[in-house]
Amino acid sequence: MKPSHIEHLGIAVKSLDTAIPFWEKLLGTKCYNIEEVPAQKVRTAFLKIGQTKIELLESTAEDGPIAKFIEKKGEGIQHVAFAVEGLENTLAECEAEGIQLIDKAPRGGAEGLSIAFLHPKSTGSVLVELCEDKNGGCKCGK
Amino acid sequence: MKPSHIEHLGIAVKSLDTAIPFWEKLLGTKCYNIEEVPAQKVRTAFLKIGQTKIELLESTAEDGPIAKFIEKKGEGIQHVAFAVEGLENTLAECEAEGIQLIDKAPRGGAEGLSIAFLHPKSTGSVLVELCEDKNGGCKCGK
Repeated sequence: MKPSHIEHLGIAVKSLDTAIPFWEKLLGTKCYNIEEVPAQKVRTAFLKIGQTKIELLESTAEDGPIAKFIEKKGEGIQHVAFAVEGLENTLAECEAEGIQLIDKAPRGGAEGLSIAFLHPKSTGSVLVELCEDKNGGCKCGK
Repeated sequence: MKPSHIEHLGIAVKSLDTAIPFWEKLLGTKCYNIEEVPAQKVRTAFLKIGQTKIELLESTAEDGPIAKFIEKKGEGIQHVAFAVEGLENTLAECEAEGIQLIDKAPRGGAEGLSIAFLHPKSTGSVLVELCEDKNGGCKCGK
Protein backbone atom coordinates (compact mmCIF):
# COMPACT_ATOMS: atom_id res chain seq x y z
CA MET A 1 0.00 0.00 0.00
CA LYS A 2 1.21 3.48 -0.83
CA PRO A 3 -0.89 6.51 0.17
CA SER A 4 0.09 9.63 -1.78
CA HIS A 5 -0.29 12.32 0.91
CA ILE A 6 -2.14 13.40 4.03
CA GLU A 7 -5.60 14.23 2.71
CA HIS A 8 -6.75 15.84 5.93
CA LEU A 9 -6.15 16.22 9.63
CA GLY A 10 -9.27 16.00 11.80
CA ILE A 11 -9.37 18.32 14.81
CA ALA A 12 -12.07 17.98 17.46
CA VAL A 13 -13.39 21.38 18.57
CA LYS A 14 -16.12 22.46 20.94
CA SER A 15 -17.28 25.29 18.71
CA LEU A 16 -16.74 25.94 15.00
CA ASP A 17 -17.65 29.59 15.61
CA THR A 18 -14.58 29.92 17.85
CA ALA A 19 -12.26 27.57 15.96
CA ILE A 20 -12.77 28.79 12.38
CA PRO A 21 -11.54 32.38 12.94
CA PHE A 22 -8.47 31.08 14.80
CA TRP A 23 -7.45 28.62 12.08
CA GLU A 24 -8.17 31.17 9.33
CA LYS A 25 -5.78 33.55 11.09
CA LEU A 26 -3.08 30.94 11.72
CA LEU A 27 -3.14 29.49 8.22
CA GLY A 28 -3.81 32.75 6.39
CA THR A 29 -6.61 31.16 4.37
CA LYS A 30 -10.40 31.12 4.52
CA CYS A 31 -12.63 28.21 5.48
CA TYR A 32 -14.07 27.16 2.09
CA ASN A 33 -16.73 24.62 3.12
CA ILE A 34 -18.96 23.82 6.09
CA GLU A 35 -20.86 20.58 5.94
CA GLU A 36 -22.95 18.44 8.28
CA VAL A 37 -22.33 14.69 8.31
CA PRO A 38 -25.36 13.23 10.12
CA ALA A 39 -23.96 9.67 10.14
CA GLN A 40 -20.99 10.91 12.22
CA LYS A 41 -23.04 13.42 14.24
CA VAL A 42 -20.70 16.26 13.30
CA ARG A 43 -20.56 19.60 11.58
CA THR A 44 -17.28 19.96 9.72
CA ALA A 45 -15.40 22.99 8.44
CA PHE A 46 -12.53 22.81 5.96
CA LEU A 47 -9.44 24.89 5.27
CA LYS A 48 -6.66 23.93 2.86
CA ILE A 49 -2.91 24.14 3.53
CA GLY A 50 -0.62 22.72 0.84
CA GLN A 51 -1.83 19.22 -0.10
CA THR A 52 -3.76 18.83 3.14
CA LYS A 53 -7.12 19.94 4.51
CA ILE A 54 -7.67 20.90 8.12
CA GLU A 55 -11.07 19.42 9.05
CA LEU A 56 -12.55 21.03 12.16
CA LEU A 57 -15.11 18.73 13.78
CA GLU A 58 -17.90 19.96 16.06
CA SER A 59 -20.26 17.41 17.57
CA THR A 60 -23.99 17.76 16.89
CA ALA A 61 -24.97 15.27 19.62
CA GLU A 62 -23.84 14.47 23.15
CA ASP A 63 -23.33 10.81 22.25
CA GLY A 64 -21.42 11.47 19.03
CA PRO A 65 -17.82 10.29 18.55
CA ILE A 66 -16.41 13.83 18.69
CA ALA A 67 -18.29 14.67 21.90
CA LYS A 68 -16.94 11.44 23.44
CA PHE A 69 -13.41 12.21 22.24
CA ILE A 70 -13.48 15.70 23.79
CA GLU A 71 -14.92 14.30 27.03
CA LYS A 72 -12.09 11.77 27.26
CA LYS A 73 -9.09 13.64 25.85
CA GLY A 74 -10.12 17.26 25.44
CA GLU A 75 -10.11 19.26 22.23
CA GLY A 76 -7.29 18.48 19.79
CA ILE A 77 -6.17 16.39 16.85
CA GLN A 78 -8.52 13.42 16.53
CA HIS A 79 -7.50 11.64 13.36
CA VAL A 80 -5.25 11.67 10.32
CA ALA A 81 -6.49 10.72 6.85
CA PHE A 82 -4.28 9.40 4.08
CA ALA A 83 -5.24 9.61 0.40
CA VAL A 84 -5.15 6.32 -1.47
CA GLU A 85 -6.14 5.09 -4.90
CA GLY A 86 -8.29 1.96 -4.82
CA LEU A 87 -9.68 2.06 -1.30
CA GLU A 88 -11.27 -1.40 -1.42
CA ASN A 89 -7.98 -3.02 -2.41
CA THR A 90 -6.11 -1.01 0.21
CA LEU A 91 -8.49 -2.24 2.92
CA ALA A 92 -7.92 -5.82 1.75
CA GLU A 93 -4.14 -5.22 1.94
CA CYS A 94 -4.52 -3.82 5.47
CA GLU A 95 -6.45 -6.90 6.57
CA ALA A 96 -3.86 -9.18 4.99
CA GLU A 97 -1.19 -7.32 7.01
CA GLY A 98 -3.14 -7.95 10.23
CA ILE A 99 -4.41 -4.39 10.63
CA GLN A 100 -7.84 -4.34 12.24
CA LEU A 101 -10.50 -2.35 10.37
CA ILE A 102 -13.36 -0.29 11.76
CA ASP A 103 -14.95 -0.11 8.31
CA LYS A 104 -14.69 -3.31 6.29
CA ALA A 105 -15.96 -1.50 3.19
CA PRO A 106 -15.73 2.13 2.02
CA ARG A 107 -18.52 4.48 3.06
CA GLY A 108 -19.38 8.07 2.26
CA GLY A 109 -17.61 10.87 4.13
CA ALA A 110 -17.54 14.66 4.01
CA GLU A 111 -16.69 16.38 0.72
CA GLY A 112 -17.95 13.39 -1.26
CA LEU A 113 -15.00 11.16 -0.40
CA SER A 114 -15.04 7.39 0.05
CA ILE A 115 -13.59 6.72 3.48
CA ALA A 116 -12.76 3.93 5.93
CA PHE A 117 -11.21 3.95 9.39
CA LEU A 118 -8.58 1.59 10.75
CA HIS A 119 -8.81 0.52 14.37
CA PRO A 120 -6.52 2.43 16.77
CA LYS A 121 -5.69 -0.90 18.46
CA SER A 122 -3.72 -1.76 15.33
CA THR A 123 -2.14 1.64 14.72
CA GLY A 124 -0.40 2.62 17.95
CA SER A 125 -3.54 4.44 19.14
CA VAL A 126 -3.62 6.79 16.15
CA LEU A 127 -7.08 6.97 14.57
CA VAL A 128 -6.20 6.52 10.88
CA GLU A 129 -8.64 7.15 8.05
CA LEU A 130 -8.00 6.09 4.48
CA CYS A 131 -9.86 7.99 1.80
CA GLU A 132 -10.29 8.14 -1.93
CA ASP A 133 -11.41 11.17 -3.92
CA LYS A 134 -13.25 10.16 -7.07
CA ASN A 135 -14.58 13.70 -7.59
CA GLY A 136 -11.48 14.95 -9.35
CA GLY A 137 -10.36 17.78 -7.12
CA CYS A 138 -10.90 19.68 -3.91
CA LYS A 139 -13.96 21.86 -3.40
CA CYS A 140 -11.58 24.67 -2.48
CA GLY A 141 -10.64 24.86 -6.17
CA LYS A 142 -6.94 24.00 -5.54
CA MET B 1 0.93 34.76 8.21
CA LYS B 2 0.76 32.05 5.58
CA PRO B 3 2.36 28.66 6.21
CA SER B 4 2.94 26.71 2.98
CA HIS B 5 2.17 23.16 4.12
CA ILE B 6 2.22 20.70 7.01
CA GLU B 7 5.94 20.07 7.48
CA HIS B 8 5.43 17.17 9.85
CA LEU B 9 3.04 15.42 12.17
CA GLY B 10 4.50 14.37 15.53
CA ILE B 11 3.31 11.03 16.91
CA ALA B 12 4.16 9.96 20.46
CA VAL B 13 5.11 6.27 20.61
CA LYS B 14 6.29 4.01 23.39
CA SER B 15 8.77 2.20 21.17
CA LEU B 16 10.35 3.17 17.85
CA ASP B 17 11.22 -0.49 17.33
CA THR B 18 7.50 -1.32 17.27
CA ALA B 19 6.24 1.84 15.59
CA ILE B 20 8.70 2.10 12.67
CA PRO B 21 7.79 -1.24 11.01
CA PHE B 22 4.07 -0.45 11.32
CA TRP B 23 4.35 3.01 9.73
CA GLU B 24 6.69 1.71 7.02
CA LYS B 25 4.03 -0.88 6.14
CA LEU B 26 1.10 1.56 6.25
CA LEU B 27 2.81 4.29 4.23
CA GLY B 28 4.72 1.98 1.89
CA THR B 29 7.95 3.89 2.47
CA LYS B 30 11.07 3.43 4.57
CA CYS B 31 12.11 5.42 7.62
CA TYR B 32 14.97 7.57 6.26
CA ASN B 33 16.37 9.14 9.43
CA ILE B 34 16.62 8.40 13.16
CA GLU B 35 17.92 11.19 15.33
CA GLU B 36 18.20 11.93 19.05
CA VAL B 37 17.21 15.40 20.26
CA PRO B 38 18.64 15.63 23.79
CA ALA B 39 17.02 19.02 24.50
CA GLN B 40 13.58 17.42 24.02
CA LYS B 41 14.56 14.10 25.58
CA VAL B 42 13.42 12.18 22.51
CA ARG B 43 14.59 9.83 19.81
CA THR B 44 12.83 10.64 16.56
CA ALA B 45 12.28 8.63 13.40
CA PHE B 46 11.13 10.14 10.10
CA LEU B 47 9.13 8.89 7.14
CA LYS B 48 7.92 11.05 4.26
CA ILE B 49 4.43 11.05 2.72
CA GLY B 50 3.73 13.69 0.06
CA GLN B 51 4.82 17.10 1.39
CA THR B 52 4.72 15.93 5.00
CA LYS B 53 6.96 13.98 7.33
CA ILE B 54 5.67 11.59 9.96
CA GLU B 55 7.88 12.16 13.03
CA LEU B 56 7.70 9.26 15.48
CA LEU B 57 8.75 10.39 18.97
CA GLU B 58 10.05 8.03 21.66
CA SER B 59 10.96 9.45 25.04
CA THR B 60 14.50 8.97 26.34
CA ALA B 61 13.60 10.02 29.91
CA GLU B 62 10.72 9.46 32.30
CA ASP B 63 10.31 13.21 32.83
CA GLY B 64 10.46 14.13 29.14
CA PRO B 65 7.52 15.83 27.37
CA ILE B 66 6.69 12.72 25.33
CA ALA B 67 6.70 10.45 28.38
CA LYS B 68 4.37 12.91 30.12
CA PHE B 69 2.10 13.13 27.08
CA ILE B 70 1.78 9.34 26.89
CA GLU B 71 1.14 9.11 30.63
CA LYS B 72 -1.69 11.64 30.35
CA LYS B 73 -3.27 10.88 26.96
CA GLY B 74 -1.73 7.63 25.74
CA GLU B 75 0.18 7.14 22.51
CA GLY B 76 -1.01 9.13 19.52
CA ILE B 77 -0.70 12.36 17.56
CA GLN B 78 1.11 14.88 19.75
CA HIS B 79 1.68 17.92 17.53
CA VAL B 80 1.38 19.37 14.04
CA ALA B 81 4.11 21.48 12.48
CA PHE B 82 3.54 24.06 9.75
CA ALA B 83 6.29 25.22 7.41
CA VAL B 84 6.80 28.99 7.27
CA GLU B 85 9.29 31.36 5.69
CA GLY B 86 10.67 33.91 8.13
CA LEU B 87 10.03 32.23 11.47
CA GLU B 88 11.01 35.23 13.60
CA ASN B 89 8.57 37.50 11.79
CA THR B 90 5.86 34.85 11.98
CA LEU B 91 6.32 34.59 15.76
CA ALA B 92 6.00 38.38 16.01
CA GLU B 93 2.79 38.20 13.95
CA CYS B 94 1.44 35.47 16.25
CA GLU B 95 2.12 37.59 19.32
CA ALA B 96 0.49 40.60 17.70
CA GLU B 97 -2.59 38.42 17.07
CA GLY B 98 -2.71 37.47 20.74
CA ILE B 99 -1.42 33.93 20.29
CA GLN B 100 0.66 32.82 23.28
CA LEU B 101 4.10 31.45 22.45
CA ILE B 102 6.04 28.68 24.18
CA ASP B 103 9.21 29.72 22.33
CA LYS B 104 9.65 33.47 21.96
CA ALA B 105 12.55 32.91 19.57
CA PRO B 106 13.41 30.12 17.11
CA ARG B 107 15.51 27.24 18.41
CA GLY B 108 17.09 24.20 16.80
CA GLY B 109 14.95 21.11 16.17
CA ALA B 110 15.39 17.72 14.52
CA GLU B 111 16.61 17.58 10.91
CA GLY B 112 18.35 20.94 11.28
CA LEU B 113 15.14 22.97 11.28
CA SER B 114 14.50 26.21 13.15
CA ILE B 115 11.40 25.61 15.25
CA ALA B 116 9.09 27.26 17.78
CA PHE B 117 5.99 26.04 19.56
CA LEU B 118 2.74 27.95 20.15
CA HIS B 119 0.95 27.45 23.45
CA PRO B 120 -2.02 25.02 23.27
CA LYS B 121 -4.00 27.46 25.45
CA SER B 122 -4.13 29.74 22.42
CA THR B 123 -4.75 27.09 19.77
CA GLY B 124 -7.79 25.10 20.90
CA SER B 125 -5.53 22.60 22.70
CA VAL B 126 -3.63 21.66 19.55
CA LEU B 127 0.14 21.71 20.09
CA VAL B 128 1.27 23.71 17.05
CA GLU B 129 4.88 23.98 15.93
CA LEU B 130 6.08 26.46 13.34
CA CYS B 131 9.27 25.59 11.52
CA GLU B 132 11.60 26.89 8.88
CA ASP B 133 13.93 24.81 6.76
CA LYS B 134 17.02 26.75 5.75
CA ASN B 135 18.83 23.60 4.63
CA GLY B 136 17.28 23.54 1.20
CA GLY B 137 15.52 20.21 1.15
CA CYS B 138 14.51 17.14 3.08
CA LYS B 139 17.08 14.58 4.19
CA CYS B 140 14.95 11.95 2.51
CA GLY B 141 16.11 13.34 -0.83
CA LYS B 142 12.57 14.31 -1.97
